[in-house]
Amino acid sequence: MDRHEILRNIVTKNETKLVLLVMDGIGDLPVDGKTPLMVAKTPNLDALAKESELGQTIPVAYGVTPGSGPGHLSLFGYDPIKYQIGRGILEALGTGVEVGEKDVVARGNFATMKDGVVIDRRAGRPPTEKSAKVVEILNENIKEIDGVKVTFYPGKEHRFVVKFTGDDLYDAVSDADPQKEGKEMEWAKALKPEAEKMAEVVNKLIRKIGEVLKDQPEMNWALLRGFSKYPKLPQFPDVYKVKAAAIATYPMYKGIAKLVGMEVLKAGTTVDDEFETLKKYWNDYDFFYLHIKKTDSYGEDGNFEEKVKVIEEVDRNIPKLLALNPAVVVVTGDHSTPCLMKSHSWHPVPYMIRSKFVRKGASEKFDEFECARGVLGTFYAVDSMMLMLAHAQRLEKYGA
Amino acid sequence: MDRHEILRNIVTKNETKLVLLVMDGIGDLPVDGKTPLMVAKTPNLDALAKESELGQTIPVAYGVTPGSGPGHLSLFGYDPIKYQIGRGILEALGTGVEVGEKDVVARGNFATMKDGVVIDRRAGRPPTEKSAKVVEILNENIKEIDGVKVTFYPGKEHRFVVKFTGDDLYDAVSDADPQKEGKEMEWAKALKPEAEKMAEVVNKLIRKIGEVLKDQPEMNWALLRGFSKYPKLPQFPDVYKVKAAAIATYPMYKGIAKLVGMEVLKAGTTVDDEFETLKKYWNDYDFFYLHIKKTDSYGEDGNFEEKVKVIEEVDRNIPKLLALNPAVVVVTGDHSTPCLMKSHSWHPVPYMIRSKFVRKGASEKFDEFECARGVLGTFYAVDSMMLMLAHAQRLEKYGA
Repeated sequence: MDRHEILRNIVTKNETKLVLLVMDGIGDLPVDGKTPLMVAKTPNLDALAKESELGQTIPVAYGVTPGSGPGHLSLFGYDPIKYQIGRGILEALGTGVEVGEKDVVARGNFATMKDGVVIDRRAGRPPTEKSAKVVEILNENIKEIDGVKVTFYPGKEHRFVVKFTGDDLYDAVSDADPQKEGKEMEWAKALKPEAEKMAEVVNKLIRKIGEVLKDQPEMNWALLRGFSKYPKLPQFPDVYKVKAAAIATYPMYKGIAKLVGMEVLKAGTTVDDEFETLKKYWNDYDFFYLHIKKTDSYGEDGNFEEKVKVIEEVDRNIPKLLALNPAVVVVTGDHSTPCLMKSHSWHPVPYMIRSKFVRKGASEKFDEFECARGVLGTFYAVDSMMLMLAHAQRLEKYGA
Repeated sequence: MDRHEILRNIVTKNETKLVLLVMDGIGDLPVDGKTPLMVAKTPNLDALAKESELGQTIPVAYGVTPGSGPGHLSLFGYDPIKYQIGRGILEALGTGVEVGEKDVVARGNFATMKDGVVIDRRAGRPPTEKSAKVVEILNENIKEIDGVKVTFYPGKEHRFVVKFTGDDLYDAVSDADPQKEGKEMEWAKALKPEAEKMAEVVNKLIRKIGEVLKDQPEMNWALLRGFSKYPKLPQFPDVYKVKAAAIATYPMYKGIAKLVGMEVLKAGTTVDDEFETLKKYWNDYDFFYLHIKKTDSYGEDGNFEEKVKVIEEVDRNIPKLLALNPAVVVVTGDHSTPCLMKSHSWHPVPYMIRSKFVRKGASEKFDEFECARGVLGTFYAVDSMMLMLAHAQRLEKYGA
C-alpha cells in the first residue's frame, strides 16, 4: 500500500495545528515490574491519556530494531523500507552542511591508529573544540583527491563530516571502518562496479589523513562511514499540505526533518527551551515535530533514574503544549531504548493521540502496558501521519 | 498479499450457511462517555458477543474514511485500493440499470442554474415522483449526442442516472460539477487523451439538458459525476464458491452486491422485512449479506437517539437470524459514522464472528470498547471473508 499515493487525492488544507511529540527511545522494559514511564510521576501525560486513544506502534517491522533514521521516517509517514537513507547524509544535514545533488557525504570518526591497528575508534572522545581544530588542519592540507574536491566539517566530539564534490560520484561504497577495536583497518570497497573510483578516492583520502595527522597524539586516523547522496524524498508541504517545523536539539533529528521538507527552528538546548520554541512559532506553522533526545541517551546509558527524570521534565511541559490548543497531539517515540539493553530495541512503542474525535475513556495513564491494551491496538508507525491528518479533518472521504 | 490468489487453491464447498450482517456506519464515538452501541438495549447482540470472537476492523487504511463502495468491497474481501469503483456505476446498478461492457454511466443531479451560476446543486431536493417526470421529459427530447446514444433513469429525489451507449467510450472524464454552490459551471475534462470525445459529448449533453429544461422552475440544469464503465470484479461464486444473496433496501448496496456476483433479493423496506427475507430464502443460498442502512443515516444526521433505536430494532431481530442456525454469523459495519461528526469516519469498526469454533468467553457485550479489546484484535476488514470461510470450514490447509 502506497500511503502517499492514497493521500494525493484526499488530503486537504485547513486551519488546524498538529503536534508530534517524539520522546526518543521512550519504550522500555520493566525492571522490578516497572518501566521508566510507570515509575515517573506524570500527572499531565496521564490526564492526556484519559482524553486520548492509546496504542503501540511497530516502527519498521516486527523484531526489527530501527536506527534513528528509519524510526523517524516511519513517524513522518515514509515507508522506512522503501526510503533508506545513509547515516552520512543525516549527519551532514544535521551539522548544517549544504549537500548538492552530485555530492557524496560520509560520516567521519577521528580514531587512534597504532602499529597498523585501530586501537580506539573514537580517539578517546576528544572535546568538540579540540576535534574542530583538527578538522581545520585537514581543510588546510587536503583540498582534493584525484580531482574530487574534499571538504571537512566539524561534528560533536570525535565526529566529523566529509563532503566529496565532483562528477560521477557514487555512494555505493562500504564503510571504511574495522567496526571493532584492536583490528587492522578495513578499507572501503565498491558495492557496485561504477563505484570503484569512489572507493579508491575514499581509501586514498584516509591514507592522506593519516599522513597529515601522523603527529597528533590521539586523533591520528579517520574512519569513514555511511557514504550517501542527497535522497529525494517527497516533501511535507507537497504530500501532507502542511507547513511543518522541527524543534530538535541534536543534528541527526534536524537533518532528517530537513530531508522531509520541514523548517528547522532554533530550539535552544533544554526541554524547556524546546517547548518555549513551540509557543514562539505557534502561529507560523501547521505541523510541529518536537524531539526529546535524552530519553534515548539515558536508555543507551542504562540510566533508569535519569530517564525517569527526563520523562518528568517533559510531563511538566505538557500543560504549555496543551495551552496552545492544538487540534491534534501525538505523544510517542521513534523506537524503544530499554535501559536493561542499553541500546535501541524492536519492542513496540507507546503511542497516544488526542483530538476532538477520539474514543476516549478506555485508558488511565500513558505507559507500555496501557498502550498495549489501548483502543488503537498495535499498528505500524508509518500509519501515524494518516491518523494525525484524519483527526485534523484534513482527509476527504476515500471513494464514493 | 493477494487473498483471492491464496483462496484459489484452498477454498472448498460444503453445506454451511454464512451470514454477514452489516450495520452501516455502526462505529461511533462516545458522547458523555457512551456510544450508541453502549446506550442501546441489546440483550441479543450482547448474548451473541459472549458466544463470539470480537475485534475491530480497519476498512481501508489507518486514518482513511471510506465511502460506501470501498467500505463494502473490503467486507466482501476485495482490496479496496486495488479495486476502485466509480460512483456512477454503483448508482446505476442500484437503480436497476443494465450496464453493458461498452457503456459509460454517470450519476446525475438535477440542479438550479441562475444567471450562469449554480445556485442549488440539488434543485431544492425535489420529491422522487417529481424528478422522475423530468427524467421522462429528458428521455423524450434527448436520444443521442454526436452519435452516442443517451438514456436517462430516475433516482431518488434530485438524483438520476445517465447511460451512454456507443463505440470507443471512455470513463476517464472529470466530474461536470462546480462542487460548491454559487459558482459557475465546471465542465467535464478528459483525464486521458483518448477520452477527449467523451468529455465533449458530456458537455454538449449538459448544454442540451439546459435547453430542454430551461422553463422548469428549479430542475433547470444537471450536474454529471462519477463517470464509469462496468468494472470486471472476481465473482463470489468463483472466488469463494458460495451462492450469495444480498438483502438490502438502498440502491447503492444492491448495486455493489451485484458487482461482486450476488443475487439481489426483494427485501421490502423495513429492518423486519429484511430479516423476513432472510428466512424466506434461507434454503436457496449459502451466503447472505444483510445490510441495515439507517444506522448510517442517523449517524449522518447526528441523531444519536434514533441511531440507538435502529440498533435496538436490529437486536430484536437477532433471534430470528439465530433460529435459522447459521454456521457463521458476522455482525459488523462497513465504516464508522459518529453522530458527533455527522459523517463517515476513519475509526475502526466493531466486529464479531460466531461459529462452533470460536475462542469465546472474553467479551460481555458488543460495543466499540469491548471490540477494541476483543480476542481478534485490530485487523483489516478485507480479511473478514477469509475468516468467515475458515469458520465455515470451507478452507483447506495451506501448504503441506
